[in-house]
Amino acid sequence: MKIVFDAFGGDNSPIEAVKGAVLALEARRNFSIVLVGQQEIIFNELRKYQYDKDRITVIDAPEIISNDDSPVLAVRKKKNSSIVVGLKLLNDIPGCEVFVSAGSTGAVLTAATLLLKRAPGVIRPALAPVLPASGNKQVVLIDCGANVEVKPEMLAQFALIGTAYARAISNNQEIKVGLLSNGREVGKGTSFIKDAYDIIAQDDRINFIGNIEARDILSGEVDVVVADGFSGNIALKASEGTALMMLKLIKESILNNGIRAKIGYLFLKPVFKEIKKTLDYNDNGGAVLLGLDKLVIKTHGSSKAKSFKAAILQAASIAEKGLITQVSSILTE
Amino acid sequence: MKIVFDAFGGDNSPIEAVKGAVLALEARRNFSIVLVGQQEIIFNELRKYQYDKDRITVIDAPEIISNDDSPVLAVRKKKNSSIVVGLKLLNDIPGCEVFVSAGSTGAVLTAATLLLKRAPGVIRPALAPVLPASGNKQVVLIDCGANVEVKPEMLAQFALIGTAYARAISNNQEIKVGLLSNGREVGKGTSFIKDAYDIIAQDDRINFIGNIEARDILSGEVDVVVADGFSGNIALKASEGTALMMLKLIKESILNNGIRAKIGYLFLKPVFKEIKKTLDYNDNGGAVLLGLDKLVIKTHGSSKAKSFKAAILQAASIAEKGLITQVSSILTE
Repeated sequence: MKIVFDAFGGDNSPIEAVKGAVLALEARRNFSIVLVGQQEIIFNELRKYQYDKDRITVIDAPEIISNDDSPVLAVRKKKNSSIVVGLKLLNDIPGCEVFVSAGSTGAVLTAATLLLKRAPGVIRPALAPVLPASGNKQVVLIDCGANVEVKPEMLAQFALIGTAYARAISNNQEIKVGLLSNGREVGKGTSFIKDAYDIIAQDDRINFIGNIEARDILSGEVDVVVADGFSGNIALKASEGTALMMLKLIKESILNNGIRAKIGYLFLKPVFKEIKKTLDYNDNGGAVLLGLDKLVIKTHGSSKAKSFKAAILQAASIAEKGLITQVSSILTE
Repeated sequence: MKIVFDAFGGDNSPIEAVKGAVLALEARRNFSIVLVGQQEIIFNELRKYQYDKDRITVIDAPEIISNDDSPVLAVRKKKNSSIVVGLKLLNDIPGCEVFVSAGSTGAVLTAATLLLKRAPGVIRPALAPVLPASGNKQVVLIDCGANVEVKPEMLAQFALIGTAYARAISNNQEIKVGLLSNGREVGKGTSFIKDAYDIIAQDDRINFIGNIEARDILSGEVDVVVADGFSGNIALKASEGTALMMLKLIKESILNNGIRAKIGYLFLKPVFKEIKKTLDYNDNGGAVLLGLDKLVIKTHGSSKAKSFKAAILQAASIAEKGLITQVSSILTE
């Protein structure tokens, strides 16, 4: 299996990206990596490491798409960027079915939608991160930003696609699905949420528990939360912002509470480490764009080597499990 | 000044509600309270306390609206409920301009919209909680659920109303406003967010900093976050759910990390207390429904005496500051 990896996406590329790729190769043996980006610089970085040369190919892509570029314009004009070249490789090289990038979310989504084919029957692809939930569980949030304006039928498909994804990553077949709304009662939400509720409730392929409030996304009660891309994005980022604020509050409060608090902190260090690890994006890989005939993983722009490694291993794992086929099967069941 | 207080709203009424009312009277002297609910039971509760009898009036309201009732039906049929009777008192008794309730959000919003007049020029009232933000700041989130479907002009008014509210509670005149969207760049968001952006950006009365992501709501960067009621509700509850999950994670992690972690916890107890206090809804009062000719404060359904007390003091304080007049002024400036 070949994984195409954007060595020039994100704030810490290519140094951390190349390092992450080498670390991923060391961790598992069942894939090779196609590194895409400015060739000379990538080779210079690779020289720092010992690695299996048969498992890394470098493809030149001299142009760079930044977060300041307009996604649509950038994808159209920068044909030699790592994002455009990388995604095209998925179509051109047999055995390539995953692209991993920490580049501009807008550009990755735009390019993927333009350059890759939709999987049979899919109305619109959706972006799905996996979040840590209570009780050591995981929850798939689908969509978190690929579709800002949605139709009810799209949400119903997200429920199916999310079910396939949750099955693939959990080995659990009984996937519970909730629909993100502003209250649990039937009839809560915008008109498209209410219509989506009716469609999802009638679909036997979905184990639908009804509306779920944003308060309960991380409760472990459901395995999949279906959302329109706008609300899903807001739920994801509100959660992220609150977690960061709390860690900051704890830190400030420890600093302001004298020696006693500092001693307490020393004792509790393993606890804080554990919590940071649970919440850490770096360990959780990236969000997967689902619904195309190839897989695209978008990792955090601030990814470091550890996070790139996690995303590449995630790519290997979902490709190995045949996620694309599973998404197609559930849609045509 | 008279504050009308629903003694039968929420999970812990009337015991905690009556206690909260007595505590509020002790804390400040510039208001009296009209307690609404089942008269005999309220009198029985009041008998437990020493209080200034001139400052409490009890009005009988034998019916109870529960969270299971359909808001619209309940408001129409239960004319003798504490919510309906209480809101009508605002129109009937001179000097009454605030109603405080921990009852069903749907019923309180429905009844307020039906029974009270809109303030001049207001398209739709909005529900605005105040959240704790970094750097000991506060942020007004408007709307968080009163208007699930919105028009751009409504969002522009929320920016103005939110500015008036933030001024009243902070004594700061330079109120910064952000619009909740799925990215900072101009042009991000649903069509109604994009249209609202243009209207708000052109309004000289608003100190508009542009779009804000949900990640930055609690950053202290803005004083007001404008949102449609659906997204605002999701941001609020995602934040609440994440804070709860983190506290749970910390607790579980302390329990699982042996004696060392438990000692650390003892040392850090003041820190955790401080954090809980910052995040605690019980100290922060309730969300204010703004845009009507009277003020309505909706407190958490799980409110206890301390929280009821905080909400009554909040009511006294915003009424005293002439918030209704300030909202009207900014809209007609």
